[in-house]
Amino acid sequence: MKIIKFTAICSLSIIIVINVVMPQFTTAADESKIGYGRGGRMSGSSKSSRSDEPIKPIPINFDYDRAKVELGKKLFFEPRLSKSGWITCNSCHNLSTGGADNLPTSIGHKWFFGPINSPTVLNSKFNLAQFWDGRAKDLKEQAGGPIANPLEMGSNHELAVSVLQSIPQYVKWFNEVYASKEMYTDEKIHIDQVTDAIAAFEETLTTPNSRFDQWLNGYDKSITKSELEGYTLFKEKGCISCHNGVGVGGNSYQKFGVAKPYDKDTDTLGRYNVTNDDKDRYFFKVPLLRNIELTAPYFHDASTWDLSEAVNIMAEYQLGTTLTDGETKKIVAFLRTLTGDQPSITFPIIPPSTSTTPEPNRN
Amino acid sequence: MKIIKFTAICSLSIIIVINVVMPQFTTAADESKIGYGRGGRMSGSSKSSRSDEPIKPIPINFDYDRAKVELGKKLFFEPRLSKSGWITCNSCHNLSTGGADNLPTSIGHKWFFGPINSPTVLNSKFNLAQFWDGRAKDLKEQAGGPIANPLEMGSNHELAVSVLQSIPQYVKWFNEVYASKEMYTDEKIHIDQVTDAIAAFEETLTTPNSRFDQWLNGYDKSITKSELEGYTLFKEKGCISCHNGVGVGGNSYQKFGVAKPYDKDTDTLGRYNVTNDDKDRYFFKVPLLRNIELTAPYFHDASTWDLSEAVNIMAEYQLGTTLTDGETKKIVAFLRTLTGDQPSITFPIIPPSTSTTPEPNRN
Repeated sequence: MKIIKFTAICSLSIIIVINVVMPQFTTAADESKIGYGRGGRMSGSSKSSRSDEPIKPIPINFDYDRAKVELGKKLFFEPRLSKSGWITCNSCHNLSTGGADNLPTSIGHKWFFGPINSPTVLNSKFNLAQFWDGRAKDLKEQAGGPIANPLEMGSNHELAVSVLQSIPQYVKWFNEVYASKEMYTDEKIHIDQVTDAIAAFEETLTTPNSRFDQWLNGYDKSITKSELEGYTLFKEKGCISCHNGVGVGGNSYQKFGVAKPYDKDTDTLGRYNVTNDDKDRYFFKVPLLRNIELTAPYFHDASTWDLSEAVNIMAEYQLGTTLTDGETKKIVAFLRTLTGDQPSITFPIIPPSTSTTPEPNRN
Repeated sequence: MKIIKFTAICSLSIIIVINVVMPQFTTAADESKIGYGRGGRMSGSSKSSRSDEPIKPIPINFDYDRAKVELGKKLFFEPRLSKSGWITCNSCHNLSTGGADNLPTSIGHKWFFGPINSPTVLNSKFNLAQFWDGRAKDLKEQAGGPIANPLEMGSNHELAVSVLQSIPQYVKWFNEVYASKEMYTDEKIHIDQVTDAIAAFEETLTTPNSRFDQWLNGYDKSITKSELEGYTLFKEKGCISCHNGVGVGGNSYQKFGVAKPYDKDTDTLGRYNVTNDDKDRYFFKVPLLRNIELTAPYFHDASTWDLSEAVNIMAEYQLGTTLTDGETKKIVAFLRTLTGDQPSITFPIIPPSTSTTPEPNRN
């Protein structure tokens, strides 16, 4: 108890220090209002001078509903949301490995393979929508997908909810979090609450304090000369046109194959599947580049495991240019400065099944 | 840094408090020297009077090699020890769910099913040997098994080591932990180090401070009258003959079907597979009953999900008796007091693959 109390005091002190000593560190920049484009201006080294850069630091945000987030964390690691009782959200969005599974496509129920590379859950709140094709408007809507996808968790919403409903501790937690919130007033757990809690947890999974963010916040020595040159190239070559904002991506749909038709995968239609509009063919949500060094393989089709090759493919197909080896190297060096503090998660303890809990089904 | 320092000081204070105020709490009882059997004596309620009970409290032990344990934790959660890059030790020994997977038998590589129910990793250091048939003499020897088992992680030791060797951060960690220990002096990682580190982590996975242990330590009110009656029945009926010591089991091999041949599974030969001695047919290591309410389904063949039924099966096949509903209920109530503090684990962040890391193979 003493430790918890003291840790709380310490955390508070840290927040105060951060806010007093480094006020710009907690500025939640509204990137949508800030113009960006090629060659964002580099302007000296004074501590507050980088707020006009097209990339914004990840805000540090302690303002969330702790009870809901804690419940969401349990659900994120809850294998009984899957039919087999074995697959969790973390199976594909592993928080040990950059919030992704580092597989070409995910393994799901009965060892089915998914159709597309699993994007990272880290910083996913900064995406304008979820999934590569943006078919879920937010994290809450996304969270319901994999539970009921036969290639993923293989369950359905009714079964998943009935599992939770059969466990008194979950009923208690859901009631604590939702009963007072007028979302629902009965004692039944609803799938909307399940996905809402998971989304609330996922929203905390940001990775602030990367070396690049430190530099954005005025700490010149946090990145090297070569990494800074990489950032300059990243802007000059045009990567920044799509990869900007807090997420260094995630805020627009773009065609894969702007400068040259992308021939490595012509089967995945992307945004077209949502809009049925021919002009959306091969459009995908621009992926976040935060922690990109942790989330190989790259692209929706996982066509490369190598970050340098990924940069070169982008240059060729999106920008219609060829980078020298030195340029690629510097851009990659810059990209590696985007790795931030990974979420520190206490592995949750989840309550046991009861005699009324549906048994897992591995088939 | 300050928080870490303070936490260390706090932890130290706690250790001091525990040792000064409750000396018996940290007594690592050598149960092998203590006679036990039916009807262990109950002797009053003074705080130090229960040291002659046949069940011993789990000692609280802070004395371990932190660097090695931290490395072992990373390996325990390391999916790249599996061929698919997806299955970890935690997949079958889930620390969220009592150190087991709550499945009849584990799901492994390519969705293969294992031949036997996965025992919990919690308190497994208290077993006289590992696996149901005791074929691994200790946790270190056990840890090598699943990595190379085609039905489990599907990899092999050479491949698993080559993955780790390709990641500079792992090479650094292994060298920090082992270079000074004369185990090996080169910069190569060895499978012996991998299993040694995993075992070191697993040895920390004990669950002290259960309500029953509190009672053993003299806190009369930690268990109810009915639970205490359950414990008395547990001794009087003879369960205690095999389920005793710190682990409440785990310290002998016993035939499944002592009083009556066990007819639900006659294919699994148990200890016989190790000794090839006919008298070991259907002998199994007695499972630990610590946290038993968390680790359904029960028995090597997972023949029941219900703890009451499990108790009744034991009574019938092992003790040749029939329990009344009231007796079963009380024994189950006692068993539920054996759930201790679950390990508090900070989910590890593991380093990314490099260009020389063997790619995962889902097939």
